[in-house]
Amino acid sequence: MAMDPTPFETHPSRYRHWKLAVRGDTATLVMAVDGEHPHRPGYELKLNSYDLSVDIELADAIQRVRFEHPEVKALVITAELDRVFCSGANIYMLGSSSHTFKVNFCKFTNETRLYLEDASANSGLGSLCACKGTTAGGGYELALACDETMLVDDGNSAVSFPETPLLAVLPGTGGLTRLVDKRKVRRDRADVFCTTAEGIKGKRAKDWGLVDHVVSRSKWDEVVAERAKALAAKQTVARGPAVQLPELAPKVTDKLIAYRYVELAIDRGERTAALLVKGPEAAPPADLTSPELWGLRAFRELDDALLRVRFDLPDIGILTVRTSGDRKLVIAHDEALAKATTGFAREVRLLQRRVLKRFDNTARSFYAVADRPDSCFAGSLLELALGADRFYMLIDKAEAVAVETSVANQGFLTMSSGLSRLDARFYGEPGRAQKVAARGAEGPIPSEEAEEIGIATIAADDIDFEDELRIAVEERASLSPDALTGMEQSLRFVGPETLETKIFGRLSAWQNWIFTRANSTGEHGALTLYGQPERPQFQWKRT
Amino acid sequence: MAMDPTPFETHPSRYRHWKLAVRGDTATLVMAVDGEHPHRPGYELKLNSYDLSVDIELADAIQRVRFEHPEVKALVITAELDRVFCSGANIYMLGSSSHTFKVNFCKFTNETRLYLEDASANSGLGSLCACKGTTAGGGYELALACDETMLVDDGNSAVSFPETPLLAVLPGTGGLTRLVDKRKVRRDRADVFCTTAEGIKGKRAKDWGLVDHVVSRSKWDEVVAERAKALAAKQTVARGPAVQLPELAPKVTDKLIAYRYVELAIDRGERTAALLVKGPEAAPPADLTSPELWGLRAFRELDDALLRVRFDLPDIGILTVRTSGDRKLVIAHDEALAKATTGFAREVRLLQRRVLKRFDNTARSFYAVADRPDSCFAGSLLELALGADRFYMLIDKAEAVAVETSVANQGFLTMSSGLSRLDARFYGEPGRAQKVAARGAEGPIPSEEAEEIGIATIAADDIDFEDELRIAVEERASLSPDALTGMEQSLRFVGPETLETKIFGRLSAWQNWIFTRANSTGEHGALTLYGQPERPQFQWKRT
Repeated sequence: MAMDPTPFETHPSRYRHWKLAVRGDTATLVMAVDGEHPHRPGYELKLNSYDLSVDIELADAIQRVRFEHPEVKALVITAELDRVFCSGANIYMLGSSSHTFKVNFCKFTNETRLYLEDASANSGLGSLCACKGTTAGGGYELALACDETMLVDDGNSAVSFPETPLLAVLPGTGGLTRLVDKRKVRRDRADVFCTTAEGIKGKRAKDWGLVDHVVSRSKWDEVVAERAKALAAKQTVARGPAVQLPELAPKVTDKLIAYRYVELAIDRGERTAALLVKGPEAAPPADLTSPELWGLRAFRELDDALLRVRFDLPDIGILTVRTSGDRKLVIAHDEALAKATTGFAREVRLLQRRVLKRFDNTARSFYAVADRPDSCFAGSLLELALGADRFYMLIDKAEAVAVETSVANQGFLTMSSGLSRLDARFYGEPGRAQKVAARGAEGPIPSEEAEEIGIATIAADDIDFEDELRIAVEERASLSPDALTGMEQSLRFVGPETLETKIFGRLSAWQNWIFTRANSTGEHGALTLYGQPERPQFQWKRT
Repeated sequence: MAMDPTPFETHPSRYRHWKLAVRGDTATLVMAVDGEHPHRPGYELKLNSYDLSVDIELADAIQRVRFEHPEVKALVITAELDRVFCSGANIYMLGSSSHTFKVNFCKFTNETRLYLEDASANSGLGSLCACKGTTAGGGYELALACDETMLVDDGNSAVSFPETPLLAVLPGTGGLTRLVDKRKVRRDRADVFCTTAEGIKGKRAKDWGLVDHVVSRSKWDEVVAERAKALAAKQTVARGPAVQLPELAPKVTDKLIAYRYVELAIDRGERTAALLVKGPEAAPPADLTSPELWGLRAFRELDDALLRVRFDLPDIGILTVRTSGDRKLVIAHDEALAKATTGFAREVRLLQRRVLKRFDNTARSFYAVADRPDSCFAGSLLELALGADRFYMLIDKAEAVAVETSVANQGFLTMSSGLSRLDARFYGEPGRAQKVAARGAEGPIPSEEAEEIGIATIAADDIDFEDELRIAVEERASLSPDALTGMEQSLRFVGPETLETKIFGRLSAWQNWIFTRANSTGEHGALTLYGQPERPQFQWKRT
């Protein structure tokens, strides 16, 4: 059972599918998919269709522009193909992928598109999707995630969602949700649009609110430059100084993935893994601007580890989450980041927020465990305990095992719902989150008290602790993975729903269901038969 | 292909599974499931487990208490079995049902539980679930829908959600959502609770917020009476005068279901149906208090027809919705109901609201069609056009085809999201709904103008109309039913999410997915094998 790791790390110098060019305050990201180099053999990436490899590069590019090119205020996403911007996720790839892969692929692409919106909302990086040709399915979903969308007016190029009429699936990478909830396209028009395979072009696309601008070929370059300039001029948030993101390059064996601050120990027989996140080794430097800053490096490593869990370790159902280090140092790093006035510091905190959201949205059970004297659930690392499904704490006589709060728990590191993890935990007791933060400011909260005030789920002394935890992990690992995914998706996201939670909760859940149905993925399903002469055969019962 | 109609109409005198007793301001509804009379042969309803027949009676009882017993201010739901309140939905029934049936059964039971909450929030009818014994799965979900929950403290009786650990499915009748979003149980405790098959009893059940009261056997009757009295005393909304709800008793053939105001013509070959709702024949009477009042009778008929579509006509994928009658009379009825100060009039409007929500939540495509001079999409009937996926209008020279607004479009008939259908339609243009209502107040809006202002999706003259509509219906009927259900669920519910939409959107979508997975319903799945010696075998990949 050897691991064939998915390479989530890349660099513009190694991109196969995109070209990133920075000029002044504008970056241009040209989609130029290399059809001969798909993520795995078996299909060709024609017509700027994409797969996981293409999206990994896109995610990398957005991240690097944020950190490495702080001068960039407008990101133009475009393509160079004649008459095609992007034809969406590759259908042969989808048709030949396992259910698990499809769902995780969609989740990752959803996260990447949300990162575009996050960069615009919080980091002074506006985005323009310049669609000089056919913009179909996932291609249009990418456009919807940008601030502005331009479509060429050539009498032919349309935006379209052919997923339902042609493939019997949904535009599930946020498409349906963004159409009516972000762009607020009228729902009856959205219904027509989503069932019209050839899409909508020209003036009607603009009138219906599907795109912002319809522009002729002759004026195309001029208007792109103009809109990019206007977008850049609108930005009020400054990033920087620039920091290059180095490779993480973990050591990977069959049993262990080891980064500098993060370790993932895998027990394939038990279908469990132990995730360890280490705190900083030293106080924050006077100048935080460093790629090796703990708050940046550790969370980038955690992000990479989570993606490997999702894609490369599908059988691992439950992870324990431990931390080790000096709580005071974590708090010092959190405070230094919060106090710093640089754009770089804010970028690091935004990255921490995104990584913690990725944690919330990872469909595995997480039990946080504090059972060692050097346990280090403080501040930004306490968020892992609050985000976990349960938090087990050992009651030790010395009260060395404890949690601590910091400024990082006070609202910046929000979940997709917009709530902080403390507010989500105490959703039933308004004001309790503040009280707990106030208590935390007074010093460490040992296990017994942590249980009393509602931070720990279960605290036990050393007579019971080990057995209780072991049994809880074994029991969890014995339950149906599907039921647990559905259960956790319902319990983790209490309170308000946002565009973001609607995409992961409502839209993704329906798409997951549809992916299991014979009408799409069965022998005679539309996704399976795409491109073949045989017509799909549907089961007609409506559910 | 003969129809075996599901009997949704019943009456307390015919109940097999519940006993309804009214005494003063308190009604007691005793669950006493007759195991020998399940909805269909093949399983026995042991231990107060329930199926569709049991839930049809519950829905009927709630409705009748609202209309027929306006003096009742507290509803006590309890059971008479020794040591068991309710053991939830019958597992053998679920295990042996088709996917389509399971999903529709869950949707109906969800609606019934929401009706309990609606009666409490809007109609002065509080509810107490008095659980004098084991309260498992759907039994506890019923309790969660009540205002107060009492659990007997006998050292044995627990509330529990064994669905995930024992059956590899979810507590999908609102259970997970109500736990954390309504009762606001801490999410890590909810996680423990939902994976602990034996449940939680006594003081801990109260401490965790799972129940409101834990009461000994000796004090049980006394406390039930006391709590019911307190609940009744809290109510501030008065219902009445009393109106008995007569049988609707439609004429049913293989091709037609015909009520007084509603007709459903079925074309099985085309997998389509034509729904017709007729307006009132006369102006509203001076005293509205009548079971035959158009606004009550017509919407009860529509409700019954929608349920028959869901359960008895699974192959019918798309319905055209037409109306006929005198628009002025519809508006006169709407206004009379809105002006009336009786509780009865408010009950009728609340019933209209519930029926229209049932319409929104029916997983079929609806194309509203106004193509006849007597078309009557006005006021409360215009809501059908606004709730439909599309609205086709014929442009006639005489401008006889038109829509009209009334007070019924101004906010009372909200969707599950809390938005009116006009606000949902113009979600992207705040203020437009008001403008349209103002224009409507000036008189009929003919087809061409209706298209211009955004009420009609498509308006066409008689040269094009018939072909355009025919092709649109044929096309819709040719698409995958599953993809359409997922698409409509995403496009219909724009804007805010509520407890209600979370139950139908997020929780139900995950449950539907889980119901298709081998781990629950496969040959070796937990739901399939329940009660048999064979242990379920799971596929371990996490999705």
